[in-house]
Amino acid sequence: MQYTYAKRMQDVRASEIRELLKLTESPEIISFSGGLPSPDLFPVEDLKEVSLSVLENSGRTSLQYTTTEGFEPLRRWVAERMNTRLGTSFSADEILLTHGSQQAIDLTGKVFLDEGDVVLCESPTYLAALSAFRLFGCRFVEMPTDDDGMIPESLEEILRAEPRAKLIYTIPEFQNPTGRSWSLARKESLVRIATEHKVVVLEDNPYGELRFEGESLPSAATFDTIGNVLCLGTFSKIFCPGYRIGWIAGPREVIDKYVLVKQGTDLQCNTVGQYQIMEYLNTRDINQHIERIRADYRVKRDIMLETMDELFPDGVSYTRPQGGLFAWVTLPEHLDARKILVECLEEKVAFVPGGSFFPNGGHQNTMRINFSYATTEELREGIARIARVLRRNLG
Amino acid sequence: MQYTYAKRMQDVRASEIRELLKLTESPEIISFSGGLPSPDLFPVEDLKEVSLSVLENSGRTSLQYTTTEGFEPLRRWVAERMNTRLGTSFSADEILLTHGSQQAIDLTGKVFLDEGDVVLCESPTYLAALSAFRLFGCRFVEMPTDDDGMIPESLEEILRAEPRAKLIYTIPEFQNPTGRSWSLARKESLVRIATEHKVVVLEDNPYGELRFEGESLPSAATFDTIGNVLCLGTFSKIFCPGYRIGWIAGPREVIDKYVLVKQGTDLQCNTVGQYQIMEYLNTRDINQHIERIRADYRVKRDIMLETMDELFPDGVSYTRPQGGLFAWVTLPEHLDARKILVECLEEKVAFVPGGSFFPNGGHQNTMRINFSYATTEELREGIARIARVLRRNLG
Repeated sequence: MQYTYAKRMQDVRASEIRELLKLTESPEIISFSGGLPSPDLFPVEDLKEVSLSVLENSGRTSLQYTTTEGFEPLRRWVAERMNTRLGTSFSADEILLTHGSQQAIDLTGKVFLDEGDVVLCESPTYLAALSAFRLFGCRFVEMPTDDDGMIPESLEEILRAEPRAKLIYTIPEFQNPTGRSWSLARKESLVRIATEHKVVVLEDNPYGELRFEGESLPSAATFDTIGNVLCLGTFSKIFCPGYRIGWIAGPREVIDKYVLVKQGTDLQCNTVGQYQIMEYLNTRDINQHIERIRADYRVKRDIMLETMDELFPDGVSYTRPQGGLFAWVTLPEHLDARKILVECLEEKVAFVPGGSFFPNGGHQNTMRINFSYATTEELREGIARIARVLRRNLG
Repeated sequence: MQYTYAKRMQDVRASEIRELLKLTESPEIISFSGGLPSPDLFPVEDLKEVSLSVLENSGRTSLQYTTTEGFEPLRRWVAERMNTRLGTSFSADEILLTHGSQQAIDLTGKVFLDEGDVVLCESPTYLAALSAFRLFGCRFVEMPTDDDGMIPESLEEILRAEPRAKLIYTIPEFQNPTGRSWSLARKESLVRIATEHKVVVLEDNPYGELRFEGESLPSAATFDTIGNVLCLGTFSKIFCPGYRIGWIAGPREVIDKYVLVKQGTDLQCNTVGQYQIMEYLNTRDINQHIERIRADYRVKRDIMLETMDELFPDGVSYTRPQGGLFAWVTLPEHLDARKILVECLEEKVAFVPGGSFFPNGGHQNTMRINFSYATTEELREGIARIARVLRRNLG
């Protein structure tokens, strides 16, 4: 039959890129396209003991329904971790566990966005945040951004010009897709300006713990004086994404709204995962584990950059991320990264063309390279193959 | 600060009842209020072996991201199970795994409902489906329903009168909250009438496998000729709710839309749970397990009904469910079940007042009793306490 979908579905369509990238699932392709952690670092042996111990001690509760808010000891751990690492002052009651931080983005749309509202975001920004927000009928304004973050003067100008501005979405640490980070001064300006304009800031921070060098910076929430900064986090990058456990932190009043909405959305996060993560945190040293991840990704980042430095042709520039999972490559303007991808797939190597990360289009001469998932050998070989294609196109 | 939430949030508020029921978490209260399976039946020992085996054989994949659609072997199992048990003819590609069937309800709202659309539902119906749909700004029309399901004449009349009717939501097996089931003839009329009016039917079936007596009936989807019947299911009631794995089945074209929407909503279901459930299904006999659940709940249902028959005063009627988790009690019209609940809490026993299950209000003289979670001793004692309160109020 002819289905009458909701109007919001008009903007939802399978991307060409996604279809192309399905090809990268084949094992002979070296893929830098996903945002996947290295499975070599999953604590599989530890998790055997952890799983048994949870079933032994909490079989009846870990397999049962739990509260929408989430397992209290885990919320307490998250609050303490944020307070210690990021200088915030959240309590367990100000944390809602979510089905990955992706769900926290979606719930933010549900709680805050009406049709026609404006979301300010970095240019480029995280693709799946765009997909989530877009379903609530918002418009995106891409903020001029340099190596230190959004530019305060532009932010003020746009907030003055956009009365429907409702939300500023930002990833200030090792951003997806660029790998760039904000300075502390820019975080402060952001919150000051957002506060003047009574706009909510959503600080998404999935990669902050994966810093290879330099100093960790406090959260934008440390500058919050009126309760307009909400913070997202996740266990996906410091533990395992397969559990789908993330969180949102914010003022109790706002979190209470999210809880009500999450209840109708999916009742609660999976209980098994919440218990296993908590047992792991209680019996293992997560800092040591994260240090292993950092060390591994640091080596991979170095190999990637060395190979790019050696082989990428003139006219191609790229970021030098101090952490996270991604580097961002800018080609000469006349090159289309989608065409480069097609040629790269023939060479059995894949990346994501950067155009999709710009909500309002353009910038087809950019590409995102993930360096966490591939092995060091694959990184060397894969980057060399991309370099070959680029040289061919710039010859 | 003064938050400017989305307009849809105006209808979202914490229910008084929910606040009252928080009291029932205290261990000295016998609670018939939740929809919780009995934790005595969770296959804890089996799951120790299952967890180890998944980590041993699939540690790297079961802890990693997976596809939005879900683990292919599990989707295949679900399709085959439905086809065998319910007479449908779904393929694996027509199944999307969801974060419990609750998420499938929410995604249905996102895919189909515009503000002002009308959802037809049983009267009463599942509370959290109302919460999910309500966030998309729909109106509810409660369908006149008898012991065999919605009444076809009323259905036709209402579909003729409501051009904005978009969706019929129904739970035809051991309904939540009443425990009643539809006849096959009524399922056929439902689909015939919905087809004439090009309206989508959402058949929610979390309890169908928990039949204590009588014959299992085919799904409404067996009468589908144009692709307008979507079916929900879940592992929560036949396995463990703590995994949060359910599904939606429907025509490939529609499921593809759900996949796109789920991607922006939460990327995918937790991978760990999908692998563990599949390993359990591969190495254990789920039919034997379900038979144990059936046998246990049948005994509990019997004890509940015997105690009600013996002790409930005249003027109080109740359903005699042939399966599922719930019975539905109707008090004389002048009694308010919310007031009865307050008195019952003093006697340390809890249930859910039935008014909340009617989207358009009223019916405060009804109550939902869950019989799966309490032990047989608690059922005898708890029902006796409710009877005492009822006799006091009807004395």
